[in-house]
Amino acid sequence: MSRRIYPREVIRKMSKYWNKLINSIEPYTAGEQPKPGQRIIKLNTNENPYSPSPMCKKALEEFDISLLRLYPNTDSRMVCEAVAEVDNVSPENVFVGNGSDEVLALCWQTFFEKDINTDKAVLIPSISYSFYPVYADFYSVRAQKVPLKDDFTIDPSDYCGKDNCGISIANPNAPTSIAMSLDDIRKILNANKDSVVLIDEAYAAFAEGYTSAATLINEYKNLIVVRTLSKSYGLAGLRLGYAIGDKELIEGLKRARDSFNSYPADALAQTLATAALKDRENFERNRQKLISTRNRVTKELRAMGFTLPDSSTNFVFAKPPSGITAESLYKNLKAKGILVRYFNKPLINEYLRISIGTDEEMDEFLKAVREEI
Amino acid sequence: MSRRIYPREVIRKMSKYWNKLINSIEPYTAGEQPKPGQRIIKLNTNENPYSPSPMCKKALEEFDISLLRLYPNTDSRMVCEAVAEVDNVSPENVFVGNGSDEVLALCWQTFFEKDINTDKAVLIPSISYSFYPVYADFYSVRAQKVPLKDDFTIDPSDYCGKDNCGISIANPNAPTSIAMSLDDIRKILNANKDSVVLIDEAYAAFAEGYTSAATLINEYKNLIVVRTLSKSYGLAGLRLGYAIGDKELIEGLKRARDSFNSYPADALAQTLATAALKDRENFERNRQKLISTRNRVTKELRAMGFTLPDSSTNFVFAKPPSGITAESLYKNLKAKGILVRYFNKPLINEYLRISIGTDEEMDEFLKAVREEI
Repeated sequence: MSRRIYPREVIRKMSKYWNKLINSIEPYTAGEQPKPGQRIIKLNTNENPYSPSPMCKKALEEFDISLLRLYPNTDSRMVCEAVAEVDNVSPENVFVGNGSDEVLALCWQTFFEKDINTDKAVLIPSISYSFYPVYADFYSVRAQKVPLKDDFTIDPSDYCGKDNCGISIANPNAPTSIAMSLDDIRKILNANKDSVVLIDEAYAAFAEGYTSAATLINEYKNLIVVRTLSKSYGLAGLRLGYAIGDKELIEGLKRARDSFNSYPADALAQTLATAALKDRENFERNRQKLISTRNRVTKELRAMGFTLPDSSTNFVFAKPPSGITAESLYKNLKAKGILVRYFNKPLINEYLRISIGTDEEMDEFLKAVREEI
Repeated sequence: MSRRIYPREVIRKMSKYWNKLINSIEPYTAGEQPKPGQRIIKLNTNENPYSPSPMCKKALEEFDISLLRLYPNTDSRMVCEAVAEVDNVSPENVFVGNGSDEVLALCWQTFFEKDINTDKAVLIPSISYSFYPVYADFYSVRAQKVPLKDDFTIDPSDYCGKDNCGISIANPNAPTSIAMSLDDIRKILNANKDSVVLIDEAYAAFAEGYTSAATLINEYKNLIVVRTLSKSYGLAGLRLGYAIGDKELIEGLKRARDSFNSYPADALAQTLATAALKDRENFERNRQKLISTRNRVTKELRAMGFTLPDSSTNFVFAKPPSGITAESLYKNLKAKGILVRYFNKPLINEYLRISIGTDEEMDEFLKAVREEI
């Protein structure tokens, strides 16, 4: 298995009661969370700055608490129906889980072969969601990193003609913020008919003029598209994600779910998610507000000398002008109560990932940046 | 690996896009759920007949929906603190997950060695929660079934002096409804200091005079106790379970969680679970009501000629008198709109598992049974 090199402190901590895997694995590190009551501007975990739909509040008020004594619907049927309507698919093409992280994990567990001695690895971009290599380790699947181009874009031909047992790509990609076109995804799908191609669309709602890969599921039996309500619907606290794909793939995910935890989404989460999905007006309004703030912040950062690609997400991936390193800027902003995400990793350690907040928050952020550079 | 024999219909369904594991596994089968609007008496999934604490309703009314735009606390800190107070442990001894099924799964994933070629298996009772062998398959851990005694009790000496890489026991056991004493658990812990011993206390709240194994965690570094709010707090729809154990075991579970899904419990579930745990009066009242109904039903069934052990759970495990088989009685009750659980499995196919409902529901059940036998 292509294990990563572990920082010293991870190796040091071991226990005879943990099995070999848990002793050797390096878990995913989420962005830091402020202490309760701490006054900060939080631009480090790509949360949506706008509250969820008022329909969620209404659904909460009308919720009959006595229902909680019963197990929830295992398939989250009403969520599937709401997704089906939004995405013009059948409810049988939808699988709901406890956040898209769980859905992604179950995809790795279901579709990618556990064989660390084979030549066939799962292809993942060298820079992408940092949970992918963790899933690979956790499920004993071999993963092979495919380098991005120098401008951080993904070249689809790098995923064609390579023997593999699966492909996992975030589109738009993170933390680069760059989207691939639907034509490029078709290219990858056409060249890999025997493997499952997982397209992780956590940020797709923020890509202008983006057509979801979910429009291709009737054409490609090997395509699974994963989404989350965390960012696009302002519901990170609700833990609701889903996959869209051919019925056979959905059935595979249900087999995995029923071998692990038959009821991943609780009754309240199902109710509120359904309400949020049905409120298209609120979704569209918040999406547009966020895109407009992002495009303004992009311009202002460029005017200050930052280097950053056009973003298709609710964050920007920006390299500070010469004179200050990304790490120093991250630390100085943190001292001022502004949290952004800094990855101390090769290739991306010159950049910061900055979540887009409200206009007011971004004005404070831009002011603070101006004082530092 | 000691794979089970799969029913024909499970083997038939395969897909080239599922990996070998998902193609071969037999998932857990939960009790059937009625269609919405169907008027039935549901005594088949051990749900609590009483609504959750009124404090949950209050917490729901006071919940600030705008909080949902943020990720929840990864450790469910406030739930840990509430559990710590109830169980007289430290919050660092508590791990919270999305239902106790998820917590159990992560225990199997963390503490039991993945080595299907080793002689060391995880010891499980031959009759117990039917999810255990599924976890074994799902995580490629070898499981070895230890026969129960003829009266369905567990003999602790069967778990002593046997080479193993872990032990997983439900106490009280399901579907037998029988509890083991704390002394018996001590015996098992003393004889297995190098393995983790998992005690699944899903039903412990309904055992009269039961002392939780959680009282032993400071004495035994290898003990992990798992609980759920589903049954004892009437919150099956909320998906909240937890483990109590030594800090090192809890840390192992967090490593597994952070390799899979960093935020297992949503913000609403954390809030309501905390409210429910703090309302000791409601917990105690509903628990006593249920125990009293169960003891009455036990007597009445025995008077009708049923054979059943004294139950320490919120269900009874009962063998009908000669003249009608368990399967026939299950079917006849179903036709009358009363669902109980029948397991078409060796050793237990002469018994029914009957969840305890309200007094009114149980009177209807007893009346229907009288008509059938």
